[in-house]
Amino acid sequence: MPQFNVGILGATGAVGQKFIRLLQDHPWFTIQALGASGRSAGKTYKDAANWIESIPLPQSVADIKVKNCKASEFDGIDFVFSGLDSSVATEIERDFAENGIPVISNAKNYRTDPTVPLLVPEVNPDHIDLISTQSFTEDQSGWIVTNPNCVVIPLVMSLKPFNDHYGIESVVLTSLQAISGAGYPGVPSLDILGNVIPLIGGEEPKISEEPLKLLGKLNEGSIEHADFPIQATATRVPVINGHLLSVTVKLKNAPADVEEAKQALKNWKSPIAGLDLPSAPEFPLNVFDDERYPQPRLHADSEKGMQTAIGRVRSCNVFDLSYIAMAHNTIRGAAGGAILNAELLVRKGFLS
Amino acid sequence: MPQFNVGILGATGAVGQKFIRLLQDHPWFTIQALGASGRSAGKTYKDAANWIESIPLPQSVADIKVKNCKASEFDGIDFVFSGLDSSVATEIERDFAENGIPVISNAKNYRTDPTVPLLVPEVNPDHIDLISTQSFTEDQSGWIVTNPNCVVIPLVMSLKPFNDHYGIESVVLTSLQAISGAGYPGVPSLDILGNVIPLIGGEEPKISEEPLKLLGKLNEGSIEHADFPIQATATRVPVINGHLLSVTVKLKNAPADVEEAKQALKNWKSPIAGLDLPSAPEFPLNVFDDERYPQPRLHADSEKGMQTAIGRVRSCNVFDLSYIAMAHNTIRGAAGGAILNAELLVRKGFLS
Amino acid sequence: MPQFNVGILGATGAVGQKFIRLLQDHPWFTIQALGASGRSAGKTYKDAANWIESIPLPQSVADIKVKNCKASEFDGIDFVFSGLDSSVATEIERDFAENGIPVISNAKNYRTDPTVPLLVPEVNPDHIDLISTQSFTEDQSGWIVTNPNCVVIPLVMSLKPFNDHYGIESVVLTSLQAISGAGYPGVPSLDILGNVIPLIGGEEPKISEEPLKLLGKLNEGSIEHADFPIQATATRVPVINGHLLSVTVKLKNAPADVEEAKQALKNWKSPIAGLDLPSAPEFPLNVFDDERYPQPRLHADSEKGMQTAIGRVRSCNVFDLSYIAMAHNTIRGAAGGAILNAELLVRKGFLS
Amino acid sequence: MPQFNVGILGATGAVGQKFIRLLQDHPWFTIQALGASGRSAGKTYKDAANWIESIPLPQSVADIKVKNCKASEFDGIDFVFSGLDSSVATEIERDFAENGIPVISNAKNYRTDPTVPLLVPEVNPDHIDLISTQSFTEDQSGWIVTNPNCVVIPLVMSLKPFNDHYGIESVVLTSLQAISGAGYPGVPSLDILGNVIPLIGGEEPKISEEPLKLLGKLNEGSIEHADFPIQATATRVPVINGHLLSVTVKLKNAPADVEEAKQALKNWKSPIAGLDLPSAPEFPLNVFDDERYPQPRLHADSEKGMQTAIGRVRSCNVFDLSYIAMAHNTIRGAAGGAILNAELLVRKGFLS
Repeated sequence: MPQFNVGILGATGAVGQKFIRLLQDHPWFTIQALGASGRSAGKTYKDAANWIESIPLPQSVADIKVKNCKASEFDGIDFVFSGLDSSVATEIERDFAENGIPVISNAKNYRTDPTVPLLVPEVNPDHIDLISTQSFTEDQSGWIVTNPNCVVIPLVMSLKPFNDHYGIESVVLTSLQAISGAGYPGVPSLDILGNVIPLIGGEEPKISEEPLKLLGKLNEGSIEHADFPIQATATRVPVINGHLLSVTVKLKNAPADVEEAKQALKNWKSPIAGLDLPSAPEFPLNVFDDERYPQPRLHADSEKGMQTAIGRVRSCNVFDLSYIAMAHNTIRGAAGGAILNAELLVRKGFLS
Repeated sequence: MPQFNVGILGATGAVGQKFIRLLQDHPWFTIQALGASGRSAGKTYKDAANWIESIPLPQSVADIKVKNCKASEFDGIDFVFSGLDSSVATEIERDFAENGIPVISNAKNYRTDPTVPLLVPEVNPDHIDLISTQSFTEDQSGWIVTNPNCVVIPLVMSLKPFNDHYGIESVVLTSLQAISGAGYPGVPSLDILGNVIPLIGGEEPKISEEPLKLLGKLNEGSIEHADFPIQATATRVPVINGHLLSVTVKLKNAPADVEEAKQALKNWKSPIAGLDLPSAPEFPLNVFDDERYPQPRLHADSEKGMQTAIGRVRSCNVFDLSYIAMAHNTIRGAAGGAILNAELLVRKGFLS
Repeated sequence: MPQFNVGILGATGAVGQKFIRLLQDHPWFTIQALGASGRSAGKTYKDAANWIESIPLPQSVADIKVKNCKASEFDGIDFVFSGLDSSVATEIERDFAENGIPVISNAKNYRTDPTVPLLVPEVNPDHIDLISTQSFTEDQSGWIVTNPNCVVIPLVMSLKPFNDHYGIESVVLTSLQAISGAGYPGVPSLDILGNVIPLIGGEEPKISEEPLKLLGKLNEGSIEHADFPIQATATRVPVINGHLLSVTVKLKNAPADVEEAKQALKNWKSPIAGLDLPSAPEFPLNVFDDERYPQPRLHADSEKGMQTAIGRVRSCNVFDLSYIAMAHNTIRGAAGGAILNAELLVRKGFLS
Repeated sequence: MPQFNVGILGATGAVGQKFIRLLQDHPWFTIQALGASGRSAGKTYKDAANWIESIPLPQSVADIKVKNCKASEFDGIDFVFSGLDSSVATEIERDFAENGIPVISNAKNYRTDPTVPLLVPEVNPDHIDLISTQSFTEDQSGWIVTNPNCVVIPLVMSLKPFNDHYGIESVVLTSLQAISGAGYPGVPSLDILGNVIPLIGGEEPKISEEPLKLLGKLNEGSIEHADFPIQATATRVPVINGHLLSVTVKLKNAPADVEEAKQALKNWKSPIAGLDLPSAPEFPLNVFDDERYPQPRLHADSEKGMQTAIGRVRSCNVFDLSYIAMAHNTIRGAAGGAILNAELLVRKGFLS
C-alpha cells in the first residue's frame, strides 16, 4: 500500500477539522504537519483549535505543533490538503506549488484557473492531465488540483449521466443548504432557527459556472467548457449536514419517458469503479424510488458521506425532467471530495 | 357597519381554530355557530377542541355547543366559513349551499368547479360574478366561493403584476413550506427536525393548476383559464409559519431590466384598495431591496399575516426573472384569505 | 401625560434594538438620542445598526445620528436606558450619572452595588429609595437603577408570593434558556440546532445571588439580603424567546397542600397594580392549571412579553414544592423590565 | 461463539426497529421471527413497517413474514426481545414466558414485579438471580427480564459510584428529553419546534421509583429497595437523540471535595468489564472536564450509543453535588440496553 506524509493547510478551521477526522484511519495518508494562521502557529493543535467535530480529537494529532502555512516549514511532506480561507489561499497555495509540494485544495481560488483541474473523480477524471500545463515548477513537482463548491458536487454528479445520454440545454435549480456549509461560528442561530434565509452570498455564481468546466472536454491541453445556462437560487435551511437541490433540466434530446431517464442514472458506471480508491463510495449515485427521499438527515451520511442521493425523478411541465439531489456538503462536498481526488492522483501516478 | 352571524364548519381543526382566532374581534362578523364531526357534536367547544393557538381560547367561543355540520342545524346563520377536511367537504358544503347558506370555503373540493369562484380579492375580484352561474338554489341564496392553496396565494399575487405587464410564458418554482400547513398533529417532529422532506403529497398539481384559473378571464359566465405551464417542487422545512417560494419566470415580453420589473411590482395597485375591507393589508405586496429578505420567521406576520413579501428580484440566466415570494400560509394562505373573500362579498352586495 | 426625552446607550446591540422597538409608541418616552461605540458614532442609525428585530426599523429612529456614549453629547436628554455591554458599562454609566443624567440600566455592572436598586417593580418597589444613598452627584440629579438577570426575573416573581407566605429555605433550579439571551450573533447555529448546551458562562452566580438582594429588606438606607441558598444549572436550548425554569423549593413553613400554594400565587396582589404604568402587565403572574403549560413558544409573548407564567405547581418528594416558571427573556427579562422600572420611577417622582 | 435464534415482539414500532438495526450484524443473535399486531401479521416486514431508521432496511429482515405475538407461532426461537407497547405487553410477555420462551423486555409492565429483575448490567448484575423466583413455568424455561426507563439509565449509572462511595440521601433532577423517546409519529412538530414542553406524561413516577429497585440489594430472593427520595421534572426539548439530566444530589457522607467525587466516577470499575459482551461499551462512563460537555448531539452516539456521559461535576449550594448526565435514549436507554441484558444472561448461563 502506498504511504504518504501529508500536511493540512487551514487545519484549525471547519474544513481542516473535517480533513483530520476523515484522515484519522486512512490506509495511505498520515497527517504529519498542520498549518494555520500566525495566531495558532507554535501552539499544539489541541490548544490552537476549537475542536467542533463530534468525535474526540484524535490523540495522534492533538500534540502536533501547528506551523505557519509556509512551504519552507513543510519539509518531508509529500503533499498538502488545503482547507484555507479564500482570503489567503491564492498566495499560500502558490507558495507550496512553487516549492514542489502538490496542493489538493478545497479553496475556490484556483478553480477557474485554466491550467488547474477542477476535479470530481467520477465525472471528469481525465481532466487530471491539465496538471502538465501548470508552470509552478520547472519539473512539475509542484501543482494544484481543486474540487468544486459543495452544491456543485451533487449537481454535477446527477447531471453527468443525463449529459452523456441526452445533452443538457439548461438547468434551473434551488438549493436548500445546511448550516455546516458556512463554517464555524458560521450562521447565527437567531438567523436560522425555525427560518429560511433566501440568500447565500457568492454561492450562486459558482453554481452557475463550475459545472461547465467540470462537464467540459479536455482538448489539446485545455478545457472546452460546456455551454448551457444554469440559474441557481441558494437558500439556507436549519439542517446540520446535507445540501438538497431541487433541479429542473431541459435536455437536447428528451428521453422516451421518466423510466428511461431513471435507468440512465441507475445504470451509470463510474469511471473509477475499478480503481479501488479507499474513499470511493461503492455506489456513487443512489437513486430512490420512494418519493419521500432523499432527506438530508437520513441520507447525508450514506457510504460515509460520499454518496450523492437522487430522488423524485419525474417529468416536468416546463422542461424535460425534475428531480432532487442531495449530498453531504462537508464530506462529499468538501474534505472527502479532496481526499478522493488525492487517491485518484495516487493511482494515476501523479503522487508517489 | 354591516353585521353578520357566521358559522364555522370544521371548527375544531387547525384551520377552524385559525378562523376563530382571526374573527375574535372582527368588526362585521360574529361567530354564532360551530360545526364539527359527530364526535364533537353536542360538546362545548372548549371540551371538543384541542386548542393549539397561542392565545387563550376566547371566552365568547369556549361555551358554544358544537353542532353537526348540517345546514338544518344552522338556522339564523348568515353564512359559513368552511375549514372542512376535503374528505367530507363535497357533501357538507353542497348541503349548506342548497339550503340557502352561502359557504366561504378554504377546502379544495370546489376550487376547480367551473361555476365556483376561486378568489383572491387583489387578483381576480371580478370572478365573483361566477356566483350567478351556480344552481345550488333557485333564488341564488346559497352558493360557494373558495380561496386557493396556501402556496398559490403568494405565487399568484407575485405573478399578477408580471402577467399584467409582460405576459407569463412559463414558471418553475420550488416551495419551502412551513409545518403549520400540514395541520395538527401534522408532521411528526422526528421527520422534520433538522431535516427537509422533498415531497408534500398532492400539493404540486394544485400549484400547477390553480393559478391558471385565478389569472383566467371571466367571459360570458365562464373562466378562460390562463395558458402557461407551471412546474412545482414542494418541500417541507422546519419553519412554523410562512411558505417561501423560489420562482423563475419566462415572460412573453421581457422587461427592459430588473429595475423595471421591480417597479412593476412596487407600483402595482390593488383593485380593492379603496374598499376599506377590515382584513385587507394596506400594502398587499412588500418588495424588499435587501437581498436577505423575505424570511418566514421575520416577515410572515407582517400586516397581520395578510401581506405577500417579495425579494431578490433579479435577472435569470435561463428565463427572464427569478425572485423569492413568501406569505403566511395559515392566515393569508387559508383562514385570513377566506375572511377577506367574505369581506369583498359583503362590499359587492353578495352578502347582506 | 408626562413626557420625557430619552436616550439609549448601546443602541445598536440586541438589547438596544429591543429598547427601540418597545419604545416605538410609548406614551411617555420619546427616543431623542442613541449612543453606541466609536465605530458607529457619526453614522445614521440605519447605517450603523444591523437591525434584527422582525418589525421594520421605525422611521423615527432610522435617521437619528448615532452619538458616542458620553454624557456631554446627551444634552437635553432626561434620562437614558442602558443596554451597554458589561465590558464598558461601568465607566459609561458612571459618566452619565455623574453628569446628572439618570441611568436605567440592564447591564450587570452596578447590580451588586449596595447603593444601587436592583429593581423589579412588582417585587421590591420600595428599594427605589436606595437612590438617595447614591453620591454620583451632589444634588442627586444623576443616579443608576438596574434590573436583574433575565432568569432572575421569572424566578423572583414566582418566589415572591411563596417567600411572603411561607419563607424560603432553599431553592434548586435548572433553566432552559432561549438563544436570544446571548445577543447577536450570539450562539452559533452549529452549536445549538437539535442540541442542548449545559453551560451558560457566568449565568449561575447571578441566579444564585441577585434574588437575595431583590427579596432583601431595605433597612436604614441599605439592603439586608435574604439568606437562603440557590443552586442553579443554566442550559441553552433551541428556543427563540422565553427562559423556562424548573424550580424546586424548600419552605420554612410548608403550605397545607398544593392547592393552598397555588392560591398563594393566584391571589398575590402586585404592589404596583393601581399605578397604571403603561408597560405593567394586567396580570403579572399567570398560573396555569393545564400541566402542559407554560411553553416558551406559546406564552412568552403574553401581555406583550411582560408576564411571568407559572405551571405544574406540585408537591415535591424531596423539598416542599416544584413548579415551572417562564418569562420572555429580552422583554420582561431585559428591555421591557427596564422600561417598567423607568415608569415606576416617573410615578414615584424620581424622574420629572 | 454462542448462537441464538431470536424473535422481536412489537417489531414494527420505533423500539422494534431499533432492535432490528442493532442486531443487524450481531455476533451471537440472529433475527428469525418478528411479531406485531394483527394488522401487520401475515405481511412481509417491508410491507408491514414504516421504516424510519436512517440506514436502509436490512435485506435479511425485509422479507420475513410478520407473525402474531403468540408464543405458539415462535417455535424454534431461543428467546425474544420485547419492544411491545405497555397496553399489550402484560398478556403477551406472560404468554411467552409461560410457554418457555424467555422475554428480554423494554416494556414497563413487569419492571415493578418483585420477581422480575430490572437490570442494568453495570449496576446490578447480581439481580439476575431473581429469575429463579419466577413461576411462569415449572422448569424455569420461561422468564422475564426488564430494563429501566430511558432517563433512569443515565441517572442510575451516574448515581451508582456515588451511592457506593458516599451513600445517597436525596436527588433532585430535571430531564431534557429527546423527541425520539416518544416513538413515532410521537411528538407533533408544531408542539416542539423552537419550544420546550414541560411535561412528559407518566415519566416522573418511573424516574422516582425505578432507581430504588436498581440500587436495591438482593437478599434471600427479593430486592430490598434503596430508600431515598427522587424529585424529577421531565421536559421535552427539540433534540433528536440523547436525554440530558441536570442532577443535584445530597449524600450521606460528603466527599472531601469535587475532585474526589470526580475521581469516584473516573475510577469506577464496571462489574462486567471482563465479560467481553459484544454490546458493552469499553468505558461505560465518560467523565468530561470540559464544562461545555456532554451535549446530546455531539455525544449521544459515543461507543455506539452505549455510553453514559457525565459533565459539570461541581459542588452545590444546597446539597453536595450537581452534575449533568446524558445517554442515548433509544440505544443505551432502550433497545441497546435490552441487548446488553441478553448478552449478560448468555454469559451467566441463563440462555443456552
